[in-house]
Amino acid sequence: MAEKLTLDALKAMDAADPLKEYADRFLIPEGVIYMNGNSLGPLTKDAKKRMASAVENEWGNELIRGWNTAGWYDMSHRVGNKIAKLIGVDDGEVVLADSTSVNLFKTLVSALHLNPGRRKIISEKGNFPTDLYIIDGVRQLTGEHYTVETHERADIMDAIGDDTAVVLLTHVHYVSGEIFPMAEITEKAHACGALTVWDLSHSVGAVETELNAAKADFAVGCGYKHLNGGPGAPAFLFAAKRHHAAMKNPISGWFSHKAPFQFVDEFEPTEGIGRMLTGTTAVLGGSALEAGLDLMLETENSVRFQKQQKLNATFQALVLQECGGLGLEVVSPQDASDRGAHISFRHKDGYAIMQNLIDMGVIGDFRAPDRMRFGFSPLFMSFENLYHAVEILRDILKSKSYQQEKYQTVNKVT
Amino acid sequence: MAEKLTLDALKAMDAADPLKEYADRFLIPEGVIYMNGNSLGPLTKDAKKRMASAVENEWGNELIRGWNTAGWYDMSHRVGNKIAKLIGVDDGEVVLADSTSVNLFKTLVSALHLNPGRRKIISEKGNFPTDLYIIDGVRQLTGEHYTVETHERADIMDAIGDDTAVVLLTHVHYVSGEIFPMAEITEKAHACGALTVWDLSHSVGAVETELNAAKADFAVGCGYKHLNGGPGAPAFLFAAKRHHAAMKNPISGWFSHKAPFQFVDEFEPTEGIGRMLTGTTAVLGGSALEAGLDLMLETENSVRFQKQQKLNATFQALVLQECGGLGLEVVSPQDASDRGAHISFRHKDGYAIMQNLIDMGVIGDFRAPDRMRFGFSPLFMSFENLYHAVEILRDILKSKSYQQEKYQTVNKVT
Repeated sequence: MAEKLTLDALKAMDAADPLKEYADRFLIPEGVIYMNGNSLGPLTKDAKKRMASAVENEWGNELIRGWNTAGWYDMSHRVGNKIAKLIGVDDGEVVLADSTSVNLFKTLVSALHLNPGRRKIISEKGNFPTDLYIIDGVRQLTGEHYTVETHERADIMDAIGDDTAVVLLTHVHYVSGEIFPMAEITEKAHACGALTVWDLSHSVGAVETELNAAKADFAVGCGYKHLNGGPGAPAFLFAAKRHHAAMKNPISGWFSHKAPFQFVDEFEPTEGIGRMLTGTTAVLGGSALEAGLDLMLETENSVRFQKQQKLNATFQALVLQECGGLGLEVVSPQDASDRGAHISFRHKDGYAIMQNLIDMGVIGDFRAPDRMRFGFSPLFMSFENLYHAVEILRDILKSKSYQQEKYQTVNKVT
Repeated sequence: MAEKLTLDALKAMDAADPLKEYADRFLIPEGVIYMNGNSLGPLTKDAKKRMASAVENEWGNELIRGWNTAGWYDMSHRVGNKIAKLIGVDDGEVVLADSTSVNLFKTLVSALHLNPGRRKIISEKGNFPTDLYIIDGVRQLTGEHYTVETHERADIMDAIGDDTAVVLLTHVHYVSGEIFPMAEITEKAHACGALTVWDLSHSVGAVETELNAAKADFAVGCGYKHLNGGPGAPAFLFAAKRHHAAMKNPISGWFSHKAPFQFVDEFEPTEGIGRMLTGTTAVLGGSALEAGLDLMLETENSVRFQKQQKLNATFQALVLQECGGLGLEVVSPQDASDRGAHISFRHKDGYAIMQNLIDMGVIGDFRAPDRMRFGFSPLFMSFENLYHAVEILRDILKSKSYQQEKYQTVNKVT
C-alpha cells in the first residue's frame, strides 16, 4: 500500500464493508477501541439477552425441567455442531466440553491409545504453555512411557518420523500469529503412521480452518476468544468420525455413557463424539457461547476472514506510516495472509506502552518479554478504529508518556 | 411424631423458623413447590443480579481487564475458600475447578500417585455412576495397573485392607441419602495405609461435613445442587494441606503453573492447592455460584442443617400420615438424621407419579428403576410447602391420575 492511508480512505473502506452493520450488535464501551478479541471476545447484545433468559426463564422458571425443556441436555452436541461449521467438519464431530486444557489431555491420550506401538510426542518450542504442560503431564502420568520432543517451527516437518506417535501443534501461534500448514503436516504425520492433535484456540472463527480437508485427526479450541463466548467459556473438542469407534476417553464420566440417566454401575461408552464428553454441561457459559456463535453464523466464513486480513494488513501499513522509526518491530509474518487474526510488535518498553494504550482506550495486550499484541475482529472492528488506534499509539511513542510511573506496575494478567 | 400434623401445626413451625425470611431471596415460580434443590438448586435474586453484573459490567465493560479489575484471576481460590467454610476445612485447601467428574479423575490419580506401592481402588456398588466410570477409566488408562473392587455399603469397612491404595466414596448416597461415617472410614483407611477421596456432591451445604475433623485426604463436589450455583455450575476440589507438597495433578494446565502469565515452556507447579487447577476459570458459571454461596454463608451451618433435618423428618411423617397404604415404601434410612437432605420412596409406578406431581407443581425427581426422590432445602422451603406437597401426592395416589397416558412418556432426564 504505497498510497497514504488517510482517514477518508479508511472511511471509504468502512463504507464498502459488507459486515459494517455488525458492529452495532456488540456492546463495546464508549471510547474503547477493542483490539483484544483474540484474547477475550466482547459482549454482544444477543449474548446479554440470551444470558438474562438463560438465568431467568431457563434456570429460574424451568428449574430441573430445563434439561428437557430448555435444551440443556443436547447443548454439548448442538453447540458443537455450530462450531463444526466454522472449522470445516461434519455434524457429530464436535462437542462443547470442559476447558481447552482438559480437552488437550483427552484428545492427546486418546490419540496415543490409537497408536499403541509408539512413544514419541512432538510439539513446537514456544507453543502455548498449556499445550506443553498437558503433554508433560501425560509423560509424567505414564511413568515416562512417552518421550516428548519440542522443535523450532522450521524443524517440525523433518522431526516427524516413523517413531512419532502424535504431533500436537497450535494452528495459529498465540504470539506471532504464524499459521502451521495443517494439511501438509497432517499428510506427513499420516505418511509416517502418526496422528495429529490441533489446538485451534487462535484459529476458530478467525482464519480459514478446514480440518476435514486437511484430514486432521483430533482438535480442541477455546470458546472465549474469537467466538465471543464470554470469560471462561466452555471449550470444544473435535475427533474425526473415522476414529470414533476405536477412541477411548481417559476421563470417562457419566456424560460419555450410553445411557447416563439409567444410572448403571458398568461403563459403556456412547457411540460417536459423545464418548469424549465427561461431566455435566456448563449450561450458563454454554448459553453465552451459543449466542456468540449464532451471531457469527449469520455471516459467511470467507467474508469474515477476508475482512480480518484486510484489517490486519491495514493496521500494519498504518503503523509503518505513522510510527516508523519509533522502535516498533513486527514479530509476525510480514504478509497478513500468512498470520492469524492478530499481529505482534516488539518494543523494549512494550509492557508500559500497552498499559498506556489501554489507559487511552486502545485495548490490546502484552506477552512477555516484549511483545505487544493487537487482534482483528471483522464483526465489530472498523477501519476507522484502526486509524484512531494508530494515532494514539504514535502519540504515546512520540511523547514517551508510557514512561510515567503508573504504567510500570505489573498486573497479574495483561 | 404421634400428634397429627395439621396445617396449623406446620404454620406454627414456620413461624418459629429462624430462616423463614430467606425464602424471599429466591425466585421460585408461582405455584411450584420445589423439592429438587438436591439436583439443581433454584435461582436467587442475588444470583440474577450478580449474573447481570458479570455479563454487563464485568464482561461488557471491563473486557479483558476483568481478569484484574473484576477478580476473575482469583476466583477459583476465592470461591474455593467460601466452600471451605461449608465443609470444615481451611483457606487454601479448596479450589473451584472443572466438573465433578474431572475433579474425581484429578484427585483419584493424585491420591494413587501418593501411594505408589499399591494397586487396589475400593468403592461402593451403586455409587453415583460418574464416580464408578471415572475409576474404571483410570483402571483402563493405566493398562489395568490398578484393580477396582466395589462392595455393598455394609462390607466397605471390612474390604479396606493393607493392599488398598484409595477408597473413593460418596458421602451422601444420591438415591437413598445414606451417609457414610467419614471419620470412621478414613481412620480405617489410614490405619491400613490407604488414602480417601470423598464425593460431597449431595453433602455440601446440606449436611454436616467436617473433612478436617475426619482427616479426609481429598474430596470433590458439585456446585449446582445445594449450593444453588445454576445449571452446570463449576465444581470444586479439596486436598488436605499435608498432601500439597507431594501431590501431582495429572491434568497440569496453565492455571496450575507457578507463573501462568510468564508463558514459559517448562512446567513448574504452583505451591498449594492451586496446582490442582487446570484451565481457565469458568467465570460466568463461577459468578452465579459465588452468589449462591454468599447467600448461604449469611447463615450458620448448624441452623441450616437442623432445619433440613426437621423438614426431612416432617415430610416423612406427613407421607406416613396422609399416604399410608397407598403403595409408597421409604428406601432411605428411617431416621432423618441418618440421611442426607433428601428422602426416596419406592413405588412401582414411581416414574408416572413423579411426572404427575411435576405437572401439579410439586417438583421432585425420579431415579430408575422405581425411586421418587424429594429434596429438602432449608433456605427456601417452608413447612407449609410440605403440607401442600403431600396433599397433592395423596390425591394423585388415591385418584390414580398418574395412569394417564401423558405421564408415561419417558423424558431424557427426569
